[in-house]
Amino acid sequence: MVATPRVLVLNGPNLNLLGTRQPEIYGTETLDDIINLLRTQAMMAGWELGALQSNHEGELIDAIHAARLNGTLAIIINPAAYSHTSVALLDALNTFDGKVIEVHLSNIHKREAFRHHSYISQRADGVIAGLGSLGYQAALNAIVATLKSD
Amino acid sequence: MVATPRVLVLNGPNLNLLGTRQPEIYGTETLDDIINLLRTQAMMAGWELGALQSNHEGELIDAIHAARLNGTLAIIINPAAYSHTSVALLDALNTFDGKVIEVHLSNIHKREAFRHHSYISQRADGVIAGLGSLGYQAALNAIVATLKSD
Amino acid sequence: MVATPRVLVLNGPNLNLLGTRQPEIYGTETLDDIINLLRTQAMMAGWELGALQSNHEGELIDAIHAARLNGTLAIIINPAAYSHTSVALLDALNTFDGKVIEVHLSNIHKREAFRHHSYISQRADGVIAGLGSLGYQAALNAIVATLKSD
Amino acid sequence: MVATPRVLVLNGPNLNLLGTRQPEIYGTETLDDIINLLRTQAMMAGWELGALQSNHEGELIDAIHAARLNGTLAIIINPAAYSHTSVALLDALNTFDGKVIEVHLSNIHKREAFRHHSYISQRADGVIAGLGSLGYQAALNAIVATLKSD
Amino acid sequence: MVATPRVLVLNGPNLNLLGTRQPEIYGTETLDDIINLLRTQAMMAGWELGALQSNHEGELIDAIHAARLNGTLAIIINPAAYSHTSVALLDALNTFDGKVIEVHLSNIHKREAFRHHSYISQRADGVIAGLGSLGYQAALNAIVATLKSD
Amino acid sequence: MVATPRVLVLNGPNLNLLGTRQPEIYGTETLDDIINLLRTQAMMAGWELGALQSNHEGELIDAIHAARLNGTLAIIINPAAYSHTSVALLDALNTFDGKVIEVHLSNIHKREAFRHHSYISQRADGVIAGLGSLGYQAALNAIVATLKSD
Amino acid sequence: MVATPRVLVLNGPNLNLLGTRQPEIYGTETLDDIINLLRTQAMMAGWELGALQSNHEGELIDAIHAARLNGTLAIIINPAAYSHTSVALLDALNTFDGKVIEVHLSNIHKREAFRHHSYISQRADGVIAGLGSLGYQAALNAIVATLKSD
Amino acid sequence: MVATPRVLVLNGPNLNLLGTRQPEIYGTETLDDIINLLRTQAMMAGWELGALQSNHEGELIDAIHAARLNGTLAIIINPAAYSHTSVALLDALNTFDGKVIEVHLSNIHKREAFRHHSYISQRADGVIAGLGSLGYQAALNAIVATLKSD
Amino acid sequence: MVATPRVLVLNGPNLNLLGTRQPEIYGTETLDDIINLLRTQAMMAGWELGALQSNHEGELIDAIHAARLNGTLAIIINPAAYSHTSVALLDALNTFDGKVIEVHLSNIHKREAFRHHSYISQRADGVIAGLGSLGYQAALNAIVATLKSD
Amino acid sequence: MVATPRVLVLNGPNLNLLGTRQPEIYGTETLDDIINLLRTQAMMAGWELGALQSNHEGELIDAIHAARLNGTLAIIINPAAYSHTSVALLDALNTFDGKVIEVHLSNIHKREAFRHHSYISQRADGVIAGLGSLGYQAALNAIVATLKSD
Amino acid sequence: MVATPRVLVLNGPNLNLLGTRQPEIYGTETLDDIINLLRTQAMMAGWELGALQSNHEGELIDAIHAARLNGTLAIIINPAAYSHTSVALLDALNTFDGKVIEVHLSNIHKREAFRHHSYISQRADGVIAGLGSLGYQAALNAIVATLKSD
Amino acid sequence: MVATPRVLVLNGPNLNLLGTRQPEIYGTETLDDIINLLRTQAMMAGWELGALQSNHEGELIDAIHAARLNGTLAIIINPAAYSHTSVALLDALNTFDGKVIEVHLSNIHKREAFRHHSYISQRADGVIAGLGSLGYQAALNAIVATLKSD
Repeated sequence: MVATPRVLVLNGPNLNLLGTRQPEIYGTETLDDIINLLRTQAMMAGWELGALQSNHEGELIDAIHAARLNGTLAIIINPAAYSHTSVALLDALNTFDGKVIEVHLSNIHKREAFRHHSYISQRADGVIAGLGSLGYQAALNAIVATLKSD
Repeated sequence: MVATPRVLVLNGPNLNLLGTRQPEIYGTETLDDIINLLRTQAMMAGWELGALQSNHEGELIDAIHAARLNGTLAIIINPAAYSHTSVALLDALNTFDGKVIEVHLSNIHKREAFRHHSYISQRADGVIAGLGSLGYQAALNAIVATLKSD
Repeated sequence: MVATPRVLVLNGPNLNLLGTRQPEIYGTETLDDIINLLRTQAMMAGWELGALQSNHEGELIDAIHAARLNGTLAIIINPAAYSHTSVALLDALNTFDGKVIEVHLSNIHKREAFRHHSYISQRADGVIAGLGSLGYQAALNAIVATLKSD
Repeated sequence: MVATPRVLVLNGPNLNLLGTRQPEIYGTETLDDIINLLRTQAMMAGWELGALQSNHEGELIDAIHAARLNGTLAIIINPAAYSHTSVALLDALNTFDGKVIEVHLSNIHKREAFRHHSYISQRADGVIAGLGSLGYQAALNAIVATLKSD
Repeated sequence: MVATPRVLVLNGPNLNLLGTRQPEIYGTETLDDIINLLRTQAMMAGWELGALQSNHEGELIDAIHAARLNGTLAIIINPAAYSHTSVALLDALNTFDGKVIEVHLSNIHKREAFRHHSYISQRADGVIAGLGSLGYQAALNAIVATLKSD
Repeated sequence: MVATPRVLVLNGPNLNLLGTRQPEIYGTETLDDIINLLRTQAMMAGWELGALQSNHEGELIDAIHAARLNGTLAIIINPAAYSHTSVALLDALNTFDGKVIEVHLSNIHKREAFRHHSYISQRADGVIAGLGSLGYQAALNAIVATLKSD
Repeated sequence: MVATPRVLVLNGPNLNLLGTRQPEIYGTETLDDIINLLRTQAMMAGWELGALQSNHEGELIDAIHAARLNGTLAIIINPAAYSHTSVALLDALNTFDGKVIEVHLSNIHKREAFRHHSYISQRADGVIAGLGSLGYQAALNAIVATLKSD
Repeated sequence: MVATPRVLVLNGPNLNLLGTRQPEIYGTETLDDIINLLRTQAMMAGWELGALQSNHEGELIDAIHAARLNGTLAIIINPAAYSHTSVALLDALNTFDGKVIEVHLSNIHKREAFRHHSYISQRADGVIAGLGSLGYQAALNAIVATLKSD
Repeated sequence: MVATPRVLVLNGPNLNLLGTRQPEIYGTETLDDIINLLRTQAMMAGWELGALQSNHEGELIDAIHAARLNGTLAIIINPAAYSHTSVALLDALNTFDGKVIEVHLSNIHKREAFRHHSYISQRADGVIAGLGSLGYQAALNAIVATLKSD
Repeated sequence: MVATPRVLVLNGPNLNLLGTRQPEIYGTETLDDIINLLRTQAMMAGWELGALQSNHEGELIDAIHAARLNGTLAIIINPAAYSHTSVALLDALNTFDGKVIEVHLSNIHKREAFRHHSYISQRADGVIAGLGSLGYQAALNAIVATLKSD
Repeated sequence: MVATPRVLVLNGPNLNLLGTRQPEIYGTETLDDIINLLRTQAMMAGWELGALQSNHEGELIDAIHAARLNGTLAIIINPAAYSHTSVALLDALNTFDGKVIEVHLSNIHKREAFRHHSYISQRADGVIAGLGSLGYQAALNAIVATLKSD
Repeated sequence: MVATPRVLVLNGPNLNLLGTRQPEIYGTETLDDIINLLRTQAMMAGWELGALQSNHEGELIDAIHAARLNGTLAIIINPAAYSHTSVALLDALNTFDGKVIEVHLSNIHKREAFRHHSYISQRADGVIAGLGSLGYQAALNAIVATLKSD
């Protein structure tokens, strides 16, 4: 019997507030809404989807370590502010052998200069920015399509 | 009668060689293969798709200018090497009012430092890198989904 | 009935040791002493004062998120070392709509070069450095005076 | 008989226009208004207050030299544009043995990059920015409180 | 009666995975193996050895604060990724009066440029890199030898 | 018959003055003292130890070339000032196939900025700084332990 | 018989769109309008005026080479985006012996940092920025006035 | 009755020596000659022209402040060396609501690197360099033409 | 039958003017003269030589692509100004599997700083600068000698 | 009759305080003492000596201009803080044809980094730092010796 | 009688090891082999050839000084590591009036960043890199050809 | 009996050529001439003068070490090119307790940028540049005058 393939969706600091703040700008879609949509999309592709949001760098690292042990094949990560400052998160992802796709809701290259560099991009297989929540879906699509064809 | 919405796919220098060189690395998919797949995908979504590849910066600019006049609603552009050096291409895109998504086949952030910066990203609404030819499809998906919902 | 206005005082890493180390230099005033004085000052102005010290970046972010929900009108924050490294804390404060005043006990511009830049200053309405614990009092004064006059 | 302690308030270039320009932004409070309030505050604390505004770097230096001779115990200085360019003013303050507090009406860290660095901060005991005219009052408070407790 | 001298061994993010990943490169020695060997070495020298690994910056800071109170004479720290990003950890070590030796398993100067700088080195008495787990033993040797001779 | 394994200890410019200058700071241990201790330590481990100190960059290079021919298995080098300026020494070490450990008596990361970078570290297998003369002993320990286990 | 003196007006990428885009900002004056006005102004001063706009770097270079041969005495050039990236255009102008005046419609020093530097300015005799289409007229005035007085 | 429009011509340090030094290079035209020509040109356009040269930064600032009060509609300024060093002059011009055109006799971009940057250009509406004294005339032309058409 | 080996000589922008400008400096040797000499040299070595000069970046790229298909074994390229700005040309050469030698007539390291860096050098097997037209001959010599010995 | 040769000694900001502040460090020699000694030294060599100290940049410039007219053959200048910030002073000295020697009492290269660069050194014939008031005497010696030998 | 023209071939640090190390990479050609070939080539052109290899910067300088006196017309120098660090060697070559050609066996622009800059290139007439030992021959060819044609 | 005080004059690379090269620029004064004049000057002041010129960094270091032992009270050093590259020479001077004066014949601040920084200046008590050989005499004067007054 073949195990159901598993993907982990990680969201970094402050993303828990999505949809609850400045809805006229960011829309009313909450992180839960996004995750639920992704879970449905995963299920239809025959995948299982785990999800964690944390404002604590250490918890995100712990989650990546756990993914190494529970057979997770891919990680979709929106590291938010930790993109720009966390070598520890990069190192954690470096211990993970599966596919990693980095997602940013906004186009970080149009924002302040310190947001143009992401440590995570040095490990990510793919990077998607500026597509809003569609970015997560594109990431999941790519994971499903790539791993299927392997 | 409503006009068919139109998207333009632009590819920059050296991308004409896709699939004809180092197939063991880049695969055997040619640029024509990619464009044909995209055209089918566009058609199924009720869109018309134009495409141009050029090694000449000026021709890419001319094509963007033309898109302003023929009702093109969105541009998918893989500027390749011109990402890093062409302010003229950025300015051309700045004259275009529609949606712009920048695509890179590889994750440019893992390559030489001079490839980490893209002038085009200062105009692009979205940026996708490292997903191979799936990146174009994700870009088209995002365009269709976003413009439908407007 | 009008709610009592509320201010939150946040202190970052290592500030729990105030007064217990090198008293000949930093004095014998502990963080508790400072908070107690501030609470009295707040009460006399008709304000309620909450306080948290943490060595954990994530806990400081959580506290700012909580402040958004419990009607806190202003935050006084001494981010200590996180001033120089935490984009996540900056982003958390960016989700807070009230007044933010950043306080440093010492004049950080006289210390090592890496302490001259504070991410938090890009969000703070005011910045006070080098006044010792008087800096907190000046911050509270400014909050009370400004919000009264609005 | 003990001499009345004396504080000098120095204001740099263009601050003479305060309150006379863009009142909808900067308010209608003139520099004279600010100084008068400070003088009253000083008097109530038993201090004498001198004040000078000048657009001439040399005059500000001369004033600091004079303060060395007339028993001034502290200087509150808003160096305005000279913060960023005047080593001469820094050197003048280096010849002054009393307390120095630097005040900026706006938060200079939110403005153009060349305003983020202040030569004066390398000498100042304290730095206050972004509190508007309340910054001067906080500076005076800190001076009175500190020197009283010495 | 003289107290047994005490040394604390701190390990930063991702070091919990030592020995469990890429054994052909990093060997099969786990962090537990390393700590056990060190504890034996410490015991034979008449020292007590405490140890903590954490992926959480705040927990490492807390542990350093605790060491100040329980009579710890020296800290051996492998800050891993936090070497390059954590001013908070530097400040925590600045509050510790004992000997501090920084250890890196690999020679960080041969890796990516952002790993060449360590904030911790600004506080450490000694720095050892590239000796693998022998680095910890050398650190402990140096501590025992130095403090004995004081 | 197996040849006695051989290690070379190289010391760069100004280290000939060790112990003869500012004994209250650097102690009274001379370079000869250090080398003699190391030689004993080597002998007890069954190794032969060669040593050279020179103020001449070229002589240090010549010695490294010679080591290639006389069966030296490892080099312990304190390049002193040449750490920061000598690409030639780096290149010489690049021609040596054995183990190289770089030693600095003081923690160079606490000194002037131009001492933070060492060309030699780009070749060294291990780097030890700030342990005083214990650093040489730790280097020798590591060499003996590593080569024994190969 | 004396030849009519000749001036060449070169316009770089995207300037063909002048007047056809965002007329509320850039006005309704097209590049043709500007050139026609200049031609009249030139004629009245007894000069002949040639003009070329191109989005192709190579065509602009070719035009400068041609100007060397047809007796052109001066070049007015608005290099637009190529100001910031084209060493080839600089070199072409370096082969031209006449007067060169560089014109920018907007004040490039108020725009993004990468627009502050112009390679062309290293060759131009004069540079005019921010005067709108009056800049071309001022350039032509200066050429006529200077060459008349020679 | 309509007031005569007024323009102020400011010249910075060392420009008082124009025409009196190295006439073989700079010509024999003095600053007075230039101002007289400009005054005639202004008069013919129905404008009044004020002029000041000073080597004192403060006097230039005072003159700008005065211009705010006497109905001056535009300032032509050759800040000379203060272009590169005076934030105070920039701030003074920022308080002036009229048109500002910056003039340099030589093309500063061909001189030492520290002359390539002008603080004044961040405020100026237009910048003219390298046209000699014709630059002032072009500036006046532009002012008269622009304000007439408003 | 063995095909005649083929080498392509590419010359970048402005090199078409060689020999026709400033003959007292650059000599009277035209690019045609150089190519003819090289062709003779090639013929004598049993090689066929193709040549192209273009001021258009895109045409140079196209020529490199063509060389991939027509059996060209080596490219000698003087990229002139495009050395310093063209990533696209670098990428085109990266698709070419043969030998590449970069030639500059002058020693670019003695000229302006922006000419010290060449993107093309990151691909070139050899680089020759400052030998005038002898550089091309040395390049051809090296190609013939190397490929013969393979 | 031959005119007495004349030298001007200029001293910049804060040097009027020499000898009146921190005599245990800077000595009790005032600027007047130094000038008097120099005047005597000049007289004995048959020279006339003028002197000016000012805290005003503009006054120092005015004095240099005046020196051009009164036959001054050489200037000894201690620009103090203006060394590091005044392009205007550099330009003023550039208009002076005589010999210029720059003097600093302390060795500015041992102080803060921003004091390592002097604009004045780009014009000065000689630079003397760190010799205290002997530096002025050495400067005068050099002027007398050089001009005598011309 | 005309003297035989003389060329000096200088080789810097570590080049004495050529051919004796990693022959599978660098080949088995020793420096002696290269020099012997060059000497033959020189002789056939009627030139005398001197050669020196040294690991000592000072010896290379001494050799250049000697060349000034013995009628050497040209120097071929492979400065190896000293290219990047030796201003003294640059200055020595600056005292030499003949032709200087710099040779590097490998293409230094493809190696570590610190190898991209050569002080020697600021003096060299020509620079050849990446041609292996053919580079020396090309240099000699160029010297013979150029000096013959003078 | 009091020992004759002793000063050492050190000259770095290439200074042995003084007076023998380009006499029309540097004059015909050789280094021997300079040293002889200095020796006479020293003798008249009751000092003994030693002198060494070397192109070898190591020999200069050795000479400084020797000076520590033979009672030398001061060193005058013209480090020439080693000023800019030799940390080893700086360290050698750091081991010397006497007075150190650095002399440069030319004003190094007017030459290439890499000559503006001197490692030696971080140790030197005084620095003299641009006075030609008078600089040595001024240095000796200062040494004699200062040590006399101690």
